[in-house]
Amino acid sequence: MPWVAGRRKRVQSLLLGIDGGGTHCRGRLTDSDGRVLAQATGGPANVWSQFDAAILAVEEVIDQLFQQAGLETDARDRTTLVAGLAGANVASVHTRLQSWQPRCQARYLFTDVEIACAGAHDGAPGTVFIVGTGSQGAAWDGTQFTLLGGWGFALSDAGSGAILGRRARRLALLAHEGIVPASALTKGIMARHQNSPEQMLLWSQQASPADWGNVVPEVFAAAQQGDHHGTALVQQAAADIVQMVQPLLARSHGKLALMGGLAEPIQNWLPAEIAAQLVKPQGDALSGAIRLASQFSQQPA
Amino acid sequence: MPWVAGRRKRVQSLLLGIDGGGTHCRGRLTDSDGRVLAQATGGPANVWSQFDAAILAVEEVIDQLFQQAGLETDARDRTTLVAGLAGANVASVHTRLQSWQPRCQARYLFTDVEIACAGAHDGAPGTVFIVGTGSQGAAWDGTQFTLLGGWGFALSDAGSGAILGRRARRLALLAHEGIVPASALTKGIMARHQNSPEQMLLWSQQASPADWGNVVPEVFAAAQQGDHHGTALVQQAAADIVQMVQPLLARSHGKLALMGGLAEPIQNWLPAEIAAQLVKPQGDALSGAIRLASQFSQQPA
Repeated sequence: MPWVAGRRKRVQSLLLGIDGGGTHCRGRLTDSDGRVLAQATGGPANVWSQFDAAILAVEEVIDQLFQQAGLETDARDRTTLVAGLAGANVASVHTRLQSWQPRCQARYLFTDVEIACAGAHDGAPGTVFIVGTGSQGAAWDGTQFTLLGGWGFALSDAGSGAILGRRARRLALLAHEGIVPASALTKGIMARHQNSPEQMLLWSQQASPADWGNVVPEVFAAAQQGDHHGTALVQQAAADIVQMVQPLLARSHGKLALMGGLAEPIQNWLPAEIAAQLVKPQGDALSGAIRLASQFSQQPA
Repeated sequence: MPWVAGRRKRVQSLLLGIDGGGTHCRGRLTDSDGRVLAQATGGPANVWSQFDAAILAVEEVIDQLFQQAGLETDARDRTTLVAGLAGANVASVHTRLQSWQPRCQARYLFTDVEIACAGAHDGAPGTVFIVGTGSQGAAWDGTQFTLLGGWGFALSDAGSGAILGRRARRLALLAHEGIVPASALTKGIMARHQNSPEQMLLWSQQASPADWGNVVPEVFAAAQQGDHHGTALVQQAAADIVQMVQPLLARSHGKLALMGGLAEPIQNWLPAEIAAQLVKPQGDALSGAIRLASQFSQQPA
């Protein structure tokens, strides 16, 4: 029923984007041209660690969006929903998500990193690599996504701040024991821990990945000043990032957007052939979800 | 009072060795020629993690030794005590240990690794490097010990089984995602985790250092068979061990004894100049403690 009787005005389809992560869930409702009708934010929505609570948070945000926009419930039947949910790629979660059937015309599920990729390249083919405390990458070739990494501090997170911080502290301790030469950087790191291996050990037993990563600004500053340990650490992080990014670029046949806390400082340390592919992210994850919803709404369901 | 009146027999001095570690405390009492008078084993004696319980365990073992040997309490006054206690090198523990004054003629405190070094080289100058789940090294130059490493899985333990196992799993996951080529070794490791990154991630959140190290036999077997990942992993472990061992050898001016689960398999992977320094350990930690006690008892206190 594409036309409303009497007024001969086309009943527009609607686009709904959800970005669900561990800290909060954001949602946006637009018309078919992307004009924003409503925006809302809700609670944590990590479907991996807390499936039921995450789905509840997403549902609440969706309800809020339609209320805000002053639309009746049946407006959902002409809505294309794209949700990017942290953890949605995990096999068991993916299976569980099949049973989530919110009322809408069509629903497409991705991870938060995939919609971030669509946002960064405004829906065009491209690669995104997020390097903050952890790391994860995605490539979009125009038809499908490839996800790499993101399996946590112990097993994965190549090139991330947490891994860089752990390497820096291990090196600082080696230097403190005289096994490798010390530098201003390694001395600065030991000073954070009262120059005491024991204090560092006690600290390490409670440290979160973000705690490990808290020396990253010092490492980059030291590298900038030519500190040989700083330089080696940053070069190693750059090499790890390149190792993750290369297969993604090969899949996407597009450009590369780096995001997260290390995105800016690492740029100068990347090899020329990778740096030449770099672009600034054009939009955020939520705009990526809307962009994908727009593409999908124009295809036969 | 070196002579017993009437019989003109020299009252021999006694040697007491204690090896205190996280699983148990072992003790040995000998005469001045090293002839064993009594041996005993007690509870855990890690002065770092549980100071009071450790000291209690040590005291109990000492009591037991004198009882077993049928010696009066005053026999302690002619006893030279050498204790090697895990964690005794940690500054705060070292300070606390000063207040522990068991009844004896003289008491000397070391770590378990230091007495292991004395045991391995029968009191002669030399280096010991223990590579099991963790790693730690000691050098004895005839006068003093140098200790290196041993600050735990997150910060230290270079060349250890836990570090090797973590590297192997990180690599297996990279291969599983197609970021590096797979090999028989990486496939075998993923098969342990049902070929599921999610299962591996869940496992990693509970894994102890010993759990991480449980793939070490597979890694060495793969390296032996020419698996390129296995070879690279073992070579890296060997390089890490060499980095720790070189400064120790420079301090001890002696030979090198490797101990722990990786001691035997890593031997063939060490560079020739290090392999040329290798000797088999001549005795265990307890014999090292007795050996040191003998040396010290012949010096002016």
